Amino acid sequence: MITSTANAQVKALSKLIKNARARRQQQLYVVEGIRMFRETPKERIGKVYVSESFAKDPAHEGVFEGTDWEMLSDSVFAAVSDTKTPQGVLCLVKMKENRLEDMLEDTDGVWLVLENVQDPGNLGTMFRTGEGAGISGVIMDKCTVDIYNPKTIRSTMGSIFRVPFYITEDLHGTLGQLQEKGIRVYAAHLEGSVCYDEPDYTGGTAFLIGNEGNGLTAETAKLADTYIRIPMGGQLESLNAAMAAGILMYEASRQRRG
Amino acid sequence: MITSTANAQVKALSKLIKNARARRQQQLYVVEGIRMFRETPKERIGKVYVSESFAKDPAHEGVFEGTDWEMLSDSVFAAVSDTKTPQGVLCLVKMKENRLEDMLEDTDGVWLVLENVQDPGNLGTMFRTGEGAGISGVIMDKCTVDIYNPKTIRSTMGSIFRVPFYITEDLHGTLGQLQEKGIRVYAAHLEGSVCYDEPDYTGGTAFLIGNEGNGLTAETAKLADTYIRIPMGGQLESLNAAMAAGILMYEASRQRRG
Repeated sequence: MITSTANAQVKALSKLIKNARARRQQQLYVVEGIRMFRETPKERIGKVYVSESFAKDPAHEGVFEGTDWEMLSDSVFAAVSDTKTPQGVLCLVKMKENRLEDMLEDTDGVWLVLENVQDPGNLGTMFRTGEGAGISGVIMDKCTVDIYNPKTIRSTMGSIFRVPFYITEDLHGTLGQLQEKGIRVYAAHLEGSVCYDEPDYTGGTAFLIGNEGNGLTAETAKLADTYIRIPMGGQLESLNAAMAAGILMYEASRQRRG
Repeated sequence: MITSTANAQVKALSKLIKNARARRQQQLYVVEGIRMFRETPKERIGKVYVSESFAKDPAHEGVFEGTDWEMLSDSVFAAVSDTKTPQGVLCLVKMKENRLEDMLEDTDGVWLVLENVQDPGNLGTMFRTGEGAGISGVIMDKCTVDIYNPKTIRSTMGSIFRVPFYITEDLHGTLGQLQEKGIRVYAAHLEGSVCYDEPDYTGGTAFLIGNEGNGLTAETAKLADTYIRIPMGGQLESLNAAMAAGILMYEASRQRRG
């Protein structure tokens, strides 16, 4: 059992939790909690770290069988965990990203395309809702918050393993690729003249969502085929970005069922 | 200028920020930030506390004219503020709750009825989205997180001042009152057999939303007229509670526009 936070493995684990660059370099990230461990595809599980009290609980016997796991004292575990009340399981996961070409194979899908979304909870909720709405994938620009941020991962509720995603170095080029394949790009925009439930989303559809405070940049917005607007009553300036994305994705899903 | 956290006013302010019972007893709550101050109806503003650097910024000259305001040193302000990077304005606001009868005057509206919603961000987002969707009000049971919690207030983005709300001591009785007025009660339920876009929401409509982890209690759910279900693809167990509420409210709004 590891009983010191000075231990090299603990230091490396802590760095992966806190540091996006370390995650990227090692192509590893960390998921927390027994539920996320269970949802992780087996072939992608690296080392598993378990708190002493979790490991010694008879109810958890055999849970980590067949994996490479190590016990941490409860205090070391609490020091390294990203949550206030740690459940006792931290699991290294090998990154696996999709190629854009694979994500766009079926050109009739629905995609979410994100520019500079900054809130980890919003990004995670977009993945979770996207899985529910049956989208084909999420495309993020480089300014969007790291998908491997522990808070993002937590709020995906496991959707990170099931919704394909791609981080683009060149958002404008990627939008062009979508359009070349006949996928229509709709920008959620406060100045949209088209109400969001008017277009036909039964063909290939991409919803472009911008930053929480500032929306889409003008340069990106002007690449869209259509500006759409979610009507708002009252004195509201905007909806929450994840909420807007969810309403759009579920409208596409509704049309596709109907 | 107040320069000590031991000052009686500062202690009272801090208590109002942290303690729901103190808020209830004094019928006062606290909003933070210049934007929330500006959105607060003038007749409900109590004392305003401003950080030294905010007050002395020439750009803010005259902002607090006509209000009873006091300066706090920046360090005292930071100690009492609920945010990591305080903007420099804390404002006492007099509570004003609606009577249920007034909220139900127009029986053709849409209401959100909440049982044991626990996340302040979710509750705030429901208010914000509700304002956008044009609902008539939010009814909360006593177990739902305090609407006057600073985190809830922040995520309402000012909707707390514009969306009528009522906290019921007797949720089941209140549901009966809605139904007596001909308002149909729809429970968002994983076992719903009716897809959420099938019912006609153009008449009086109440959406019943339960706790984030456990949904509605069986006792409350069985009082609903109809169980509705938001279809979910993938392996998702549920949507985020605020997202589910938003999708339902915007479906009602869509039908009412159509």
